[in-house]
Amino acid sequence: MPEQTERPTLEVCLSPALLHLYDLAQKIVVVIDVLRATSTICTALYHGAQKVIPVDSVEKCMEIGRQLGAVTAGERDGHIAPGLEHGNSPLEYPASFIQNKTLVLTTTNGTRLLHMAKDAEEIVIGSFLNVSAVCEYLIARRRPVMLACAGWKDRINLEDSLLAGAIIHRIKSHFDIQCDAALIVEQLYETTQGQLMEHMQQASHYQRLTRHGFQQDIAYCLTIDGANVLPVYRDGAIALA
Amino acid sequence: MPEQTERPTLEVCLSPALLHLYDLAQKIVVVIDVLRATSTICTALYHGAQKVIPVDSVEKCMEIGRQLGAVTAGERDGHIAPGLEHGNSPLEYPASFIQNKTLVLTTTNGTRLLHMAKDAEEIVIGSFLNVSAVCEYLIARRRPVMLACAGWKDRINLEDSLLAGAIIHRIKSHFDIQCDAALIVEQLYETTQGQLMEHMQQASHYQRLTRHGFQQDIAYCLTIDGANVLPVYRDGAIALA
Repeated sequence: MPEQTERPTLEVCLSPALLHLYDLAQKIVVVIDVLRATSTICTALYHGAQKVIPVDSVEKCMEIGRQLGAVTAGERDGHIAPGLEHGNSPLEYPASFIQNKTLVLTTTNGTRLLHMAKDAEEIVIGSFLNVSAVCEYLIARRRPVMLACAGWKDRINLEDSLLAGAIIHRIKSHFDIQCDAALIVEQLYETTQGQLMEHMQQASHYQRLTRHGFQQDIAYCLTIDGANVLPVYRDGAIALA
Repeated sequence: MPEQTERPTLEVCLSPALLHLYDLAQKIVVVIDVLRATSTICTALYHGAQKVIPVDSVEKCMEIGRQLGAVTAGERDGHIAPGLEHGNSPLEYPASFIQNKTLVLTTTNGTRLLHMAKDAEEIVIGSFLNVSAVCEYLIARRRPVMLACAGWKDRINLEDSLLAGAIIHRIKSHFDIQCDAALIVEQLYETTQGQLMEHMQQASHYQRLTRHGFQQDIAYCLTIDGANVLPVYRDGAIALA
């Protein structure tokens, strides 16, 4: 374990509506939107997509898709948005389909959070699918870290909190943690004892997604290291570091 | 356990900066500011104070104190604010001092939250000191409930989250809980297994308060049912129901 005086800080922000309370300059921000934006981004890049361009509206998605000849994707109310070709499910992006392509993805919570974190020194994409890659990177970089959860319409959600807790659980000895939210989510994660799916069945988002038939998505999005790459957001696009 | 269809909702808001996301009309809001505003309010009323008037500035505190011949109290940066007579510590308000008096109290987080919750059907004051009184009341009233945590300068804190969890742990079978923050804080509370003080030593606020010499305050503020009354906020003042 490094000396206390050498350790960078580690904080957690459980809702985009709290992000303004923190100074993000000189920090690495890990954007977390487990169901399903950041899981889909990791999957597409793991399967060989060149890059993912996150946008905040269906119109922008269609426009950029036309300009670049890219795959367009996005949902509204659980269905593929009119004018787009694909949905937000990570299972729609196997290598046989997405390799060497650009994906233009419109999501609500996740994209907004990426834009809000623009003052950060670096922005990386976190999901259960790449938790090892994220943790190794954060330990190696030795910079202050903010784990930024997308939540659901600014409300705190269970799945993003659990991932923040899982990351803290793995890397806490390398950081100085003076953040109650970090203590809370780490203890939350520890109570699951690795039984993520069982735990998630209590979550509000689980109910919403299973109503739309996405049980398979949830099981996949909770798979530790299922797409273990390190996506970085830079100049409006996400690509592997 | 009542039928599911009959149960009112129970939600938790972990920061005043998230309160705008919720409709408070027709709900009972429990205002929680464990260290130390709501603990001090419960203590003063338990010891016979006629009422507590919460105000948001030292100037208002002095003015109302003069008008009513009331006790004025408030701190800034851990010291009694210039112009006021007493501090925010609950231990400053034994019956021998506060009985039959009016206390004008200026606090930052707690008072602001009371004003933000003004659309609620009812506002009650929650602390570990009166957790049984609060829980019995909420069960008896059978109305939708919002547990509103004051936090620290809009950041989530451990002590308020723990109290929200303790309340949920006691009353959850009477309510319909579709709120991930509620699941999170209940699990947090369960991990403490009643060892609140030990748990609190990790908290950021614990460090702040012990620097100012308030260890005794913290131990007292974590005492279950230490001042088991039901303070209600109505027309700008807090008094027993």
